[in-house]
Amino acid sequence: MPAPKMLTFDVFGTVVDWYSSIKAEGEALGESKGITGVDWGKFASSWRRRYGPSMEPIRTGERGWIKLDVLHRENLLATLEEFGVDLDEPSTEHFNRAWHRLTPWPDSPPGLARLKSKFIIATLSNGHIELIVNMAKNGNLPWDVVLGAEPTQSYKPHPTTYLRSAEIMGLTPGECMMVAAHPGDLEAAAGLGFQTAYVHRPNEFGPGRTVEAPKPNTFDYQTNSMEELATALGC
Amino acid sequence: MPAPKMLTFDVFGTVVDWYSSIKAEGEALGESKGITGVDWGKFASSWRRRYGPSMEPIRTGERGWIKLDVLHRENLLATLEEFGVDLDEPSTEHFNRAWHRLTPWPDSPPGLARLKSKFIIATLSNGHIELIVNMAKNGNLPWDVVLGAEPTQSYKPHPTTYLRSAEIMGLTPGECMMVAAHPGDLEAAAGLGFQTAYVHRPNEFGPGRTVEAPKPNTFDYQTNSMEELATALGC
Repeated sequence: MPAPKMLTFDVFGTVVDWYSSIKAEGEALGESKGITGVDWGKFASSWRRRYGPSMEPIRTGERGWIKLDVLHRENLLATLEEFGVDLDEPSTEHFNRAWHRLTPWPDSPPGLARLKSKFIIATLSNGHIELIVNMAKNGNLPWDVVLGAEPTQSYKPHPTTYLRSAEIMGLTPGECMMVAAHPGDLEAAAGLGFQTAYVHRPNEFGPGRTVEAPKPNTFDYQTNSMEELATALGC
Repeated sequence: MPAPKMLTFDVFGTVVDWYSSIKAEGEALGESKGITGVDWGKFASSWRRRYGPSMEPIRTGERGWIKLDVLHRENLLATLEEFGVDLDEPSTEHFNRAWHRLTPWPDSPPGLARLKSKFIIATLSNGHIELIVNMAKNGNLPWDVVLGAEPTQSYKPHPTTYLRSAEIMGLTPGECMMVAAHPGDLEAAAGLGFQTAYVHRPNEFGPGRTVEAPKPNTFDYQTNSMEELATALGC
């Protein structure tokens, strides 16, 4: 297997810790607004659970492509209703943009810096350009380029998201390696010819929902952090 | 005037020295292929002169959007013919991609690093994503995001290139500052509400074609380097 030229990264859960970040933003919001009785960890999980289904009408073509801020907001309004929380408009907008401020897993900034020295490092996320760039500025994530949903006008795991991302960079799928904490994302990429690296994030979904690692040799690489991946790839 | 949130940069001539880079690549190619009697400085100028006109059919909508590599190649073939140079296919392709390897002006990498500490720094160039990213890797240009031609499917100075670039980042034109060595680029951006910074590059076009600086107060800022711009903007 020849070395890849570009590593394409899933972001939510793989590079950043959405659960802890959204929970902490919810708790801070609750405190400042005097909202009581809400388990913000459960709130974060519920908000996130609506994410996959909300992209489905776009994947099927039933709904035109729109950026993730819009879907996040629709899902936030539904989650606020579920938890009986009444939030003013500025707070709703601020909370919705918490996804622009997600905190990286501690190994992500140093690991990505090492990987960047040898490879093009790209996001191949369902996050739109503005969200990914704001998150990168906030969390010191040194991306070379934002690919994925917005540049390809599609949502993973639609084949277009992967194939057009490679094509934009003038690369074949085999010259790219998908990096993700989610087997489904890696399987979709592998099916199109991408190399694959699994990064284990056992606590992505918060306490009590520990993720089990796939069986060995399911993917080309299997590591526990971006630092380990950098070492495995000779950086 | 409130401080901008994003600086959007012209690239060819403003951030990188296309004339010296293309001349040097031509000279190296001539030497390796035994091509004699070609003034590679004049070759570089002629190749570049075809750039503006070649985008015009795309600006008017007569031709669909295509990436700059295609236009560069069409213009290269015409220039090779003009200079009576017969080049094999791999060398033609390699020479065409010299635009992916242009050398930064010496102040660009350190100046951009300083500017990045305070602002989102984006390319707003007619170069496509692959070209800009390869150039950045090659020349240590720490862009936060590639905007401009490819993400907006348009070529400057069409208004779409500027307006959609701001919109992708969720910003108003007034929250952006266009940085360029070319008055026409800055005037187009200013006409749409962008703030403007002129960076003087007197030797952009090579010897004997020294560029004169605009009159003072033509643009919001006028400096001689990215380092000077960083200082002027308080970085």
